Amino acid sequence: MTKEELFQNILLKSSFLCIGLDTDIRKIPAFLLKERNPIATFNKSIIEATHDLCVAYKPNIAFYEAEGIHGWQALESTLAHIPSDIFTIADAKRGDIGNTSQMYAQAFFHHYHFDAVTVSPYMGGDSVLPFLSFSGKYVILLIVTSNEGAGDFQTLLSGSKPIYKHVLEKAMTWAGPDQLMFVTGATRPEVLGQIRRKAPDYFFLVPGIGAQGGNLEDVCKYGMNEQCGLLVNSSRDILYAGQGKDFQEKAREAALKIKEKMSNLLISL
Amino acid sequence: MTKEELFQNILLKSSFLCIGLDTDIRKIPAFLLKERNPIATFNKSIIEATHDLCVAYKPNIAFYEAEGIHGWQALESTLAHIPSDIFTIADAKRGDIGNTSQMYAQAFFHHYHFDAVTVSPYMGGDSVLPFLSFSGKYVILLIVTSNEGAGDFQTLLSGSKPIYKHVLEKAMTWAGPDQLMFVTGATRPEVLGQIRRKAPDYFFLVPGIGAQGGNLEDVCKYGMNEQCGLLVNSSRDILYAGQGKDFQEKAREAALKIKEKMSNLLISL
Repeated sequence: MTKEELFQNILLKSSFLCIGLDTDIRKIPAFLLKERNPIATFNKSIIEATHDLCVAYKPNIAFYEAEGIHGWQALESTLAHIPSDIFTIADAKRGDIGNTSQMYAQAFFHHYHFDAVTVSPYMGGDSVLPFLSFSGKYVILLIVTSNEGAGDFQTLLSGSKPIYKHVLEKAMTWAGPDQLMFVTGATRPEVLGQIRRKAPDYFFLVPGIGAQGGNLEDVCKYGMNEQCGLLVNSSRDILYAGQGKDFQEKAREAALKIKEKMSNLLISL
Repeated sequence: MTKEELFQNILLKSSFLCIGLDTDIRKIPAFLLKERNPIATFNKSIIEATHDLCVAYKPNIAFYEAEGIHGWQALESTLAHIPSDIFTIADAKRGDIGNTSQMYAQAFFHHYHFDAVTVSPYMGGDSVLPFLSFSGKYVILLIVTSNEGAGDFQTLLSGSKPIYKHVLEKAMTWAGPDQLMFVTGATRPEVLGQIRRKAPDYFFLVPGIGAQGGNLEDVCKYGMNEQCGLLVNSSRDILYAGQGKDFQEKAREAALKIKEKMSNLLISL
């Protein structure tokens, strides 16, 4: 999917919602546990209930990996249920030496056919470049994350700039906005604004609204560009909105509430 | 396994060799491709041929993930063939917000029963701590890696110290050497020496000898402590030493060559 196609989908759906599929078997409605693959069944239901309200789904790979082979089967089944016009992100935070990153890229882009994968920058350029060699695919690189620990190393100053700005500037020499996006947490909107000024044309994946405390209006105020430029993620608030037989409707209601806010915030585009 | 048990194994075997199972289906002997699970069969053969020469095996998770469900089956089968006195490391370079790191820890410690997992520090303390909550298990945290890209961010100066020293010092406040080890690449032995001075009692996992250019004698000169304190990894030089029917013997010869050097270097302990 090109950046322009993604923007067209955002306009068409009046939404820049990314739904995080952090599907925890201990949190899904109990009556689903009798299904052959409860995670797959739950995800299929969530996708059925929300696919017209979002432009991206983001399976959080840890939640599948933790279940072993059943988890990977659930991931494959989930991906098969996502309509082809929806952008898919493997939230994997991978990154290793070149030949290993190449294998991770192969896993997510070739084997599972994701459109994008999140990558951690600690190991530098040659750990990220193999992911960028897949045509039509995106790296979403961690810049500033939404968690408290982001303050441990990401914001350390080197010269006059925090580490995350070094990461951002270096990454922009590796690839343009047709191949690269950035993770910038919703919990630091003023930082998001600084990153937007440095990287006006790149899409940002923004986790951290809802359960983690970030605010959608602030994210848009500081982060939106002329092509929206934002995929704002919500996971737990949607997935676990209901625990009864009506969990699909509850998930849809929760997604719709965010989507309607987004529609209003998109009016100026 | 306690640190003391690991040291006893090192003395017993006169070896601190870690064999990296970066098993690439395109590089294993062609005649194995007719097997039901070629990666599992290859690994079983390598383990049979080398288990008395090494103290650790380190499956590189990317190589299994890239093969989908067959890859995970190969990993499970591989782990079942590793003798229980050998330390097992999931080389995964994971790290995410707390609830997600918790799931990764569950995957590698509970589901696959690894002794240790490699973790990337970029997301800070709350991304690492969940891995440290599993009793009897180890986090092996990236400090300085063996690849060229290590120079992009790890060695940037913040205050008077490079980032990797900030990571090291902070990490030492999270856990002691009974729960935490560090990745320090063999390609930067002088840096390895600095890290040893800061962290005298921690084990280091040292990748980068052989194919990546690092030198075993230098690693020992700068990195060894009174309990050895080193797990030195070799992958490709051992795994792909032979391509014929005699690949087991060739792998054993390659491992033995390294092990004999190690035995000499251990004499002073």
